[in-house]
Amino acid sequence: MITLTSDFGSPYPAAMKGVIRRHTDAELIDVAHDLPRGDPRAAAFWLRFVLPEFPPAVHCAVIDPGVGTDRDALVVRAGAHVIVAPDNGLAMPPARALAGDESDVEAWTVAVEDPASKTFHGRDVFAPTAARVRTALDDATGESGADSLDADLVAETLAGMDDLTPASDPVDVRFPEPTVERAEESEEGGDAEDGEVLAVDGEVLAIDRFGNVITNVPGELVRGRDWVRVNGDLTPVAETFGAVDPGERLVTVGSHGYAECDVNDGRGDGAFDLRPGDSVRFVPDSVSL
Amino acid sequence: MITLTSDFGSPYPAAMKGVIRRHTDAELIDVAHDLPRGDPRAAAFWLRFVLPEFPPAVHCAVIDPGVGTDRDALVVRAGAHVIVAPDNGLAMPPARALAGDESDVEAWTVAVEDPASKTFHGRDVFAPTAARVRTALDDATGESGADSLDADLVAETLAGMDDLTPASDPVDVRFPEPTVERAEESEEGGDAEDGEVLAVDGEVLAIDRFGNVITNVPGELVRGRDWVRVNGDLTPVAETFGAVDPGERLVTVGSHGYAECDVNDGRGDGAFDLRPGDSVRFVPDSVSL
Amino acid sequence: MITLTSDFGSPYPAAMKGVIRRHTDAELIDVAHDLPRGDPRAAAFWLRFVLPEFPPAVHCAVIDPGVGTDRDALVVRAGAHVIVAPDNGLAMPPARALAGDESDVEAWTVAVEDPASKTFHGRDVFAPTAARVRTALDDATGESGADSLDADLVAETLAGMDDLTPASDPVDVRFPEPTVERAEESEEGGDAEDGEVLAVDGEVLAIDRFGNVITNVPGELVRGRDWVRVNGDLTPVAETFGAVDPGERLVTVGSHGYAECDVNDGRGDGAFDLRPGDSVRFVPDSVSL
Repeated sequence: MITLTSDFGSPYPAAMKGVIRRHTDAELIDVAHDLPRGDPRAAAFWLRFVLPEFPPAVHCAVIDPGVGTDRDALVVRAGAHVIVAPDNGLAMPPARALAGDESDVEAWTVAVEDPASKTFHGRDVFAPTAARVRTALDDATGESGADSLDADLVAETLAGMDDLTPASDPVDVRFPEPTVERAEESEEGGDAEDGEVLAVDGEVLAIDRFGNVITNVPGELVRGRDWVRVNGDLTPVAETFGAVDPGERLVTVGSHGYAECDVNDGRGDGAFDLRPGDSVRFVPDSVSL
Repeated sequence: MITLTSDFGSPYPAAMKGVIRRHTDAELIDVAHDLPRGDPRAAAFWLRFVLPEFPPAVHCAVIDPGVGTDRDALVVRAGAHVIVAPDNGLAMPPARALAGDESDVEAWTVAVEDPASKTFHGRDVFAPTAARVRTALDDATGESGADSLDADLVAETLAGMDDLTPASDPVDVRFPEPTVERAEESEEGGDAEDGEVLAVDGEVLAIDRFGNVITNVPGELVRGRDWVRVNGDLTPVAETFGAVDPGERLVTVGSHGYAECDVNDGRGDGAFDLRPGDSVRFVPDSVSL
Repeated sequence: MITLTSDFGSPYPAAMKGVIRRHTDAELIDVAHDLPRGDPRAAAFWLRFVLPEFPPAVHCAVIDPGVGTDRDALVVRAGAHVIVAPDNGLAMPPARALAGDESDVEAWTVAVEDPASKTFHGRDVFAPTAARVRTALDDATGESGADSLDADLVAETLAGMDDLTPASDPVDVRFPEPTVERAEESEEGGDAEDGEVLAVDGEVLAIDRFGNVITNVPGELVRGRDWVRVNGDLTPVAETFGAVDPGERLVTVGSHGYAECDVNDGRGDGAFDLRPGDSVRFVPDSVSL
């Protein structure tokens, strides 16, 4: 199996599939081709969410604002999974999620011949590399498209590929952890109980195609509350969009486990005026300002 | 084969595919992932149109505005086909279309363990259920991904699955039949011949992504006419959009066999001011008002 | 393998896949279903770009503004590839690209029974024809879905199909060649060196979904320059969008090898006021006007 991810729209990914079909019959599964354009950070977020659902596979992910520059092409092993991607950080967060343990992630740079195109390395570099890796793994397991891979076999196979060189320092994307402010014993005069959350300073990780604002604030910090202040504005917390009227704002916990700023039947990014990377402060309704 | 339908956009359906691939190698075919959001009725319309083209298969369809509530998850047998879907009515119209005969449709509720997410039952409930059904069918036929299924074998296999319980009263969606007013013998003073259609009172079933307004009025009631009044406005009837100038309104018969209110190179929903569920009255040009 | 291309959006292509699955298990790969609506010329451009990446396959391409008229359905052999498409020209440019040599392209018309629908020949005519061709090829090679085809075997197989008749004069689309004006020896008083490009008069071939304006001007005529006048306006030439500020115009060479008129983080079609078929004149900055 080879999964494919890009910001290419259509019909460019089909060219990648054609190239792969010249090398291998491995099954092709599209993850997405409409990810935010030229945004490796958003791609890292979404791939970290989706790829761990798959059994071991080769994942080819091309969100590549640096195409045409001298950025490297990477092959990253994460447990028994392999990610083929430009060296711009997008591969590392999903690799850590796939491996579970950071020590089970290793990266190689790909020796790239001068490609046919300066602007379509998806077709000319990444698709052929994914196909070569897939073929090497199939040869190693003796099965075509076999996904019964283990990490040791994958590591050994990649180490044996002539065009791969261990990568010394691949670009990485780190998603920030939110800062959680809690009531302390020593605090005087406050109404809050010890350990109670007073505020969470987080950040917007991504906006999905519906305009839902995905933050890095863990869902458990808002779940079960009725109201929360989002950057000062009191907002209802609900499990489903239908809990508020169409056009009204709410905070939910998305399927990725993070708090989201949403609008029922509308766009949260506009209503909350939030963009990826923006700061977002959650203050429980129960905390006196 | 497992077909997949949702209103999830991207990349969420890929998470469902990853989950399925942990259980079975059955072929995956996307029907659509951009169906109108949270609208089981629209999904029922489109699936009733598309699914009957397939040979017997498992169809996983997740348009689920009730996610997070206690609505059931259903497995519906329709002849030798199986639909896995939330219990909100979307499965029943396509099931009747697949079975041909309503008596060949039966439904079970799925015993659902507490899912990982309150908001992504596509990944946590419906995809694993579809995979389990597919695997049970494959075990029953002795072939992997076999689609040479007959209704009796499917019925027997589903009846033997431990986590399925016969559904007593699944939610249903019924599409209304239009009311056709015809000239009668006894009518005096009219110009109309006996049996001639004087008016059809129908309803908008769906709007497609081009803005074409799909009604429940059978195509044969308009086909062959030159003009028809749509809610009072005289509109040309044509077989192809190109029969009228760009921007002009027309009535056609769509591939689903129903009369559509369209605009050449434009949107019919805006031009005719029609939404799903709205009433629409067709009066032949030949009938004096 | 059968590739599928259309302007149908969703879920119509799934109906085509269902029909194909009643005849053959051949792998199905989507090229695009969001091509410009009713525009065989744009489809020809994109298929000419994408299909040559594939190994020999059957390609079913339905952009069909003439559906419901008496235009023919074609089966076109291009080397060992087969294109199934309406007879409106879209098949011929990709066929020439696939075959390499125009003499290795031949076309048949398909004897079409009265289809179920006047408006959905994708499902009722082209999908079944592609499936029949695929099955005939599989029977000829003795392998299911075999793509190890050679041109002679494909030609022989198609010639043996009862419902195909040699097409006398299929509709063709020809993309114009640009006119290149160069400095001549005899020219007096000019600053230009002999053979230097003074101007290129080209045409807009297509607009992609990002609004990038794809011309028929070969990339080598602009690559390496710093500036070029586009219809009189001085515009920077760059290898990557990031070379100019967001919202600024630039000329790049796209992955198809042609000069493009683009805007970084914006739409080139609006900024340059260019549409498919429009004239576009490139004058090197070094040429005095």
